[in-house]
Amino acid sequence: VFRESAGRARVVVSTGGLGPTSDDLTAEAVARAFGLSLREDAEALAQIEARYAARGRAMPPLNRKQALLPEGARVLENLLGTAPGFAVEAGDSVIYCLPGPPFEMRPMLERWVVPDVTARTSVVPRRTVVLRCIGIAESNAAERMIGLARDGVEIGYRAAMPEIHVKLHVPPGVDPAPFVADARARLGDVVFGVDTGDLASVCHHHLQRRGETLAVAESCTGGRLGAMLTAMPGASRTFVGGALVYANAEKTRQCGVPTSLLETHGAVSEPVAVALAEGIRGACGTSWGLAVTGVAGPGGGTAERPVGTVWVACAGPDGTTTRRLKAPYDRERVMAFAAGNALDLLRRATED
Amino acid sequence: VFRESAGRARVVVSTGGLGPTSDDLTAEAVARAFGLSLREDAEALAQIEARYAARGRAMPPLNRKQALLPEGARVLENLLGTAPGFAVEAGDSVIYCLPGPPFEMRPMLERWVVPDVTARTSVVPRRTVVLRCIGIAESNAAERMIGLARDGVEIGYRAAMPEIHVKLHVPPGVDPAPFVADARARLGDVVFGVDTGDLASVCHHHLQRRGETLAVAESCTGGRLGAMLTAMPGASRTFVGGALVYANAEKTRQCGVPTSLLETHGAVSEPVAVALAEGIRGACGTSWGLAVTGVAGPGGGTAERPVGTVWVACAGPDGTTTRRLKAPYDRERVMAFAAGNALDLLRRATED
Repeated sequence: VFRESAGRARVVVSTGGLGPTSDDLTAEAVARAFGLSLREDAEALAQIEARYAARGRAMPPLNRKQALLPEGARVLENLLGTAPGFAVEAGDSVIYCLPGPPFEMRPMLERWVVPDVTARTSVVPRRTVVLRCIGIAESNAAERMIGLARDGVEIGYRAAMPEIHVKLHVPPGVDPAPFVADARARLGDVVFGVDTGDLASVCHHHLQRRGETLAVAESCTGGRLGAMLTAMPGASRTFVGGALVYANAEKTRQCGVPTSLLETHGAVSEPVAVALAEGIRGACGTSWGLAVTGVAGPGGGTAERPVGTVWVACAGPDGTTTRRLKAPYDRERVMAFAAGNALDLLRRATED
Repeated sequence: VFRESAGRARVVVSTGGLGPTSDDLTAEAVARAFGLSLREDAEALAQIEARYAARGRAMPPLNRKQALLPEGARVLENLLGTAPGFAVEAGDSVIYCLPGPPFEMRPMLERWVVPDVTARTSVVPRRTVVLRCIGIAESNAAERMIGLARDGVEIGYRAAMPEIHVKLHVPPGVDPAPFVADARARLGDVVFGVDTGDLASVCHHHLQRRGETLAVAESCTGGRLGAMLTAMPGASRTFVGGALVYANAEKTRQCGVPTSLLETHGAVSEPVAVALAEGIRGACGTSWGLAVTGVAGPGGGTAERPVGTVWVACAGPDGTTTRRLKAPYDRERVMAFAAGNALDLLRRATED
């Protein structure tokens, strides 16, 4: 595949297979593809040793294998992992071999590969503007965009449950502003950010701007809402914590939900969602309280409350808003959808 | 690429690009590659409409595009999503086009593709046995396996933070048992399961067998431990919930950690981890309490407690065990590593 790819492309990028174990074969494969020998590269070895030293550890003997590169390879430093990347020239082409973990690979791609693509070809990268949406299906978003593309602008879509991303790929020399404005007008208030971080980070920034705080009470999401809210550094400026109330007894103990309410309406109901949100807001003394209660499945559904039935609630200074969800998905996606919709209530209540 | 691949392989598998939006181009690309026209396939259309009907929705007009397949294509039903797959014969090869989302793709691969690979080629799938480990680095695991492989058995490795998977690929006709026993002996008690689910599900099964329950108190993991413990259906049989104690005030309010303890030792300390685990166990009345407190970074580190310093604790009927972690990783991996190590304390305390 390396030989074939080099036969049709000026720049070939490979990811993965640079680790220390016996099933990591990229360097060997590249060497064999182009008739090169493998040699221990002193620069690569020094980089691997430095990476271990920075962690206060000695390099395991096996990791020496990661310094074996095809002769003539150019070493590409990996600042976030032990596997150096490398580049090999083959005829008119260059083969870039980068590590597999995305967080290691991405900065190396941007530092070494992208500029070289521009240098070796006439390709100038397009500018991409990402409109982040929640509360719309991918098909419906795409329908609203029909007719927007012109002047070489292309539209891409990505379903990133619970978000939908609408991407405008804008060629060099074209002003993205009118296209972004047009797309925003077509999509309306399902857009929560343009070129921003994810929904939780947008909520965090809204709260930080307002000097407000947040606590959560999670039943069926089991911690996913808290995990989303603590993914960004500095989360403690707005997020104080909350309660995992998976069992009904915890809903009562931690959020003061009356057992009579649970018996009358069931745990998956609007009154219980409201009581959870208001209860955790009061218990933690925060500006806002978010709550989720639902049937994540695959079991536990009834005719009245099938799997995917979820109530989310957002309690704040001016009262409590709720939303009922019908999420006909598998367990993991019901949970992600539920957490995203709880955040969306908060986003709508806190954005300018 | 479709043409090239068909020129060198009897079976070609493609994933993704089967959606309803304008950037989903797989069917069009396959048709063009092999000089076929695109036609609306009645069977595919019926499958898409049925999928929407099962969700109680009408098919959006745009999704009709997903029924446009290359002439002569065989439709492959997608039971978990709206995008049917398809297969096209091209000379001696077959091109399988499957949807991109892994949970949709995998069952289709197993149902249609794997048997056909065996039928069209002499390839008989190897049996793969996965030894799941925690508490060992990939390099160290690989060092312990040197010399095990023989009789055509191959070894693969996967770093699935916080787990390391050691995979034994065993050819047909070879008994895997002695290799598995040898690998277990070499790896020792870092192995928590062989061909099992993940660490959280193994803990769940241990607790279920013992008729015991669990609650968690999470500081720096922010909900990830709860999320891991609720990923499997039936989690409520052992997991009751717990506390997200991101702010120090919540550590005191929800788990009774004395403010003097926080002031004397700091939030990231063994005494605070112990107090959190014992506090949540007492508050929730569970058999076990797990706690995590640490510095996830990238900020907040000190010379004494650098980023990646984490204490985990497991309180149970016979007392409390702890572990101090040094996790020189980025924020997301510090959190995953911390949650995994908390679970590992529970696993060791509950396995037979």
